[in-house]
Amino acid sequence: MSRLSHQTTTVYLSAPDMIRLVQRKGLPACIAGVAARIEHAFLRWHEFDKSARVASHSDDGVIELMPIADASQFAFKYVNGHPKNTRDGLPTVMAFGVLADVATGAPRLLSELTLTTAIRTAAMSALAARTLARPGSRAMALIGNGAQSEFQALAFRDLAGVRELRLFDTDPAATRKLAANLAGHGLDVRVCASTAEAVRGADIVTTVTADKTNAVILMPEMIEPGMHINAVGGDCPGKTELHPGVLELGAVFVEFEPQTRVEGDIQQMPADFAVTEFWQVLAGLRPGRTSDSQVTVFDSVGFALEDYAALTFMRDAAAELGIGDTLELVPRAADPKNLFGMLRAGQAADRRLHESAIV
Amino acid sequence: MSRLSHQTTTVYLSAPDMIRLVQRKGLPACIAGVAARIEHAFLRWHEFDKSARVASHSDDGVIELMPIADASQFAFKYVNGHPKNTRDGLPTVMAFGVLADVATGAPRLLSELTLTTAIRTAAMSALAARTLARPGSRAMALIGNGAQSEFQALAFRDLAGVRELRLFDTDPAATRKLAANLAGHGLDVRVCASTAEAVRGADIVTTVTADKTNAVILMPEMIEPGMHINAVGGDCPGKTELHPGVLELGAVFVEFEPQTRVEGDIQQMPADFAVTEFWQVLAGLRPGRTSDSQVTVFDSVGFALEDYAALTFMRDAAAELGIGDTLELVPRAADPKNLFGMLRAGQAADRRLHESAIV
Repeated sequence: MSRLSHQTTTVYLSAPDMIRLVQRKGLPACIAGVAARIEHAFLRWHEFDKSARVASHSDDGVIELMPIADASQFAFKYVNGHPKNTRDGLPTVMAFGVLADVATGAPRLLSELTLTTAIRTAAMSALAARTLARPGSRAMALIGNGAQSEFQALAFRDLAGVRELRLFDTDPAATRKLAANLAGHGLDVRVCASTAEAVRGADIVTTVTADKTNAVILMPEMIEPGMHINAVGGDCPGKTELHPGVLELGAVFVEFEPQTRVEGDIQQMPADFAVTEFWQVLAGLRPGRTSDSQVTVFDSVGFALEDYAALTFMRDAAAELGIGDTLELVPRAADPKNLFGMLRAGQAADRRLHESAIV
Repeated sequence: MSRLSHQTTTVYLSAPDMIRLVQRKGLPACIAGVAARIEHAFLRWHEFDKSARVASHSDDGVIELMPIADASQFAFKYVNGHPKNTRDGLPTVMAFGVLADVATGAPRLLSELTLTTAIRTAAMSALAARTLARPGSRAMALIGNGAQSEFQALAFRDLAGVRELRLFDTDPAATRKLAANLAGHGLDVRVCASTAEAVRGADIVTTVTADKTNAVILMPEMIEPGMHINAVGGDCPGKTELHPGVLELGAVFVEFEPQTRVEGDIQQMPADFAVTEFWQVLAGLRPGRTSDSQVTVFDSVGFALEDYAALTFMRDAAAELGIGDTLELVPRAADPKNLFGMLRAGQAADRRLHESAIV
């Protein structure tokens, strides 16, 4: 390829490509690799141009764009959230993302991010728990047993020492699916009849429910001293999982405060409700957990920096494995000021729609 | 295709596809068709969820995301602006866009928008001039003879009655390229030695320059009574083309006021400087030009609604002509709550990276 075409070719990772990539690399290696990239990116916090995501709400769901950039790469994710989709056989969350060169604006990677979002969300959750949960935590309640739950379970097994899981979902079929999928993965799994039963005695409580409503999955009376709460599903205005009283029980950690004030469970709290940005804990600037009896809450909503980290991991893994295709999203004019000249008859008429695979 | 795959398959229009589409449909038909879609969309102004675009600025340029939605379709455009790119043989502007279903969040179209942006920008400019310029306008000065200039010329020929063009660019090679490209297109073309010479006696003045700077392409003393100024190139903070005095000479029209206050030439004016949103003129709610001697200024920055209109036109034209491919951006799980199950060995291993063309 010429230098020009090299600079404007976009690598494409489809959903089937990503499945092959994760199969070949192994899901645990992908979760651990993405977690390492997220940690590295959070430690470079001040190098990023950060903004809250842009959301377009409708009656049935939300469509969001999540941009972020450092000095070399611009990244964004497109992601929806439509809880009723599963009734029609569609995923609740569908996502894709792009990496582009800041120096030229050329889009260099287009990747599926549905599977990748489940991986990066689990990696983020487990990274936070590894830092914030009580040392020696072994038992986790997993409330909400949908598409993301297996990823949460395996990330906590590998990164946060979890060995026992207590499952609950209002949809028993979802719980049966999760329990079946986790068989043989080294976790002691128990199906519970209620959230309260699942939470009782757990070291860590993960809520990853989908309803777009102000739900109250966790009540203050369920919370025991020393628990770490990983609240994943309360992630847009009007979509929460925790009773406000739960947030008052302990220390609350967030990804990017301006975004979480709008989207997180803390949307229920006053604007001056104290929170700590998680990167500050990683960087040693602010304390994390301060005692074994303290309750810690990670009010996670998903931040563009995590997608930036996941996109760079997947880009590098795809290159290493020779997976992926290329797209010609940008016209290749011999003279960039002569876009019109490309329309002359004969130009591009016989060009293949896709170039050969990059392998 | 099953109903599920039908709902999650994304049609893909590459840059070569778009060249073929415009060649087969004809550039004039594309410009006119996009202009009609833009006019229709502007007349549905209140049905859209509108926001100013999200911009990420760097030393050399800007990368922007431009989302918009009505009740059925969500659209966004990715677009950069890097004036120095042409030194490296890269386009100044590269763009692509997406249409998605609001009801489910599924991405349904991914299209190149570099060529399409030139078409929609020209269509928007000519639509505004048809409404705002003096009746009988025939002569246009075209300042800035880069990648967008031919499109502007042909759009004004077809939609605004322009028959004479006076060209100027600080890069004489760009002007030679434009004059050569316009030969045989029914326009009387004259190459000028300065902006002042090109502007003198013109009915319409179009500025479409690329430098990311507060340039002063047009001075008040160049402007004659009754002129219509189509200011295209002043479109981000710190990038303007008009001396503030030019804006004080007449009536200023904008696309979406909150965005233009930040990005347009009116960024140089006080926050209460009077402007009219163009859709109000189209809808008959506000006057456009009020006399033959009035100066009118269209301070254009490019609004997401225009890309929505262009994307729907190109989607329909591609379907009509059988152009385009499909992407599998979204995983197709038999059970959408069982994303993890797709990772089992054997799943997707033999799937083709791309499905057959949709023709």
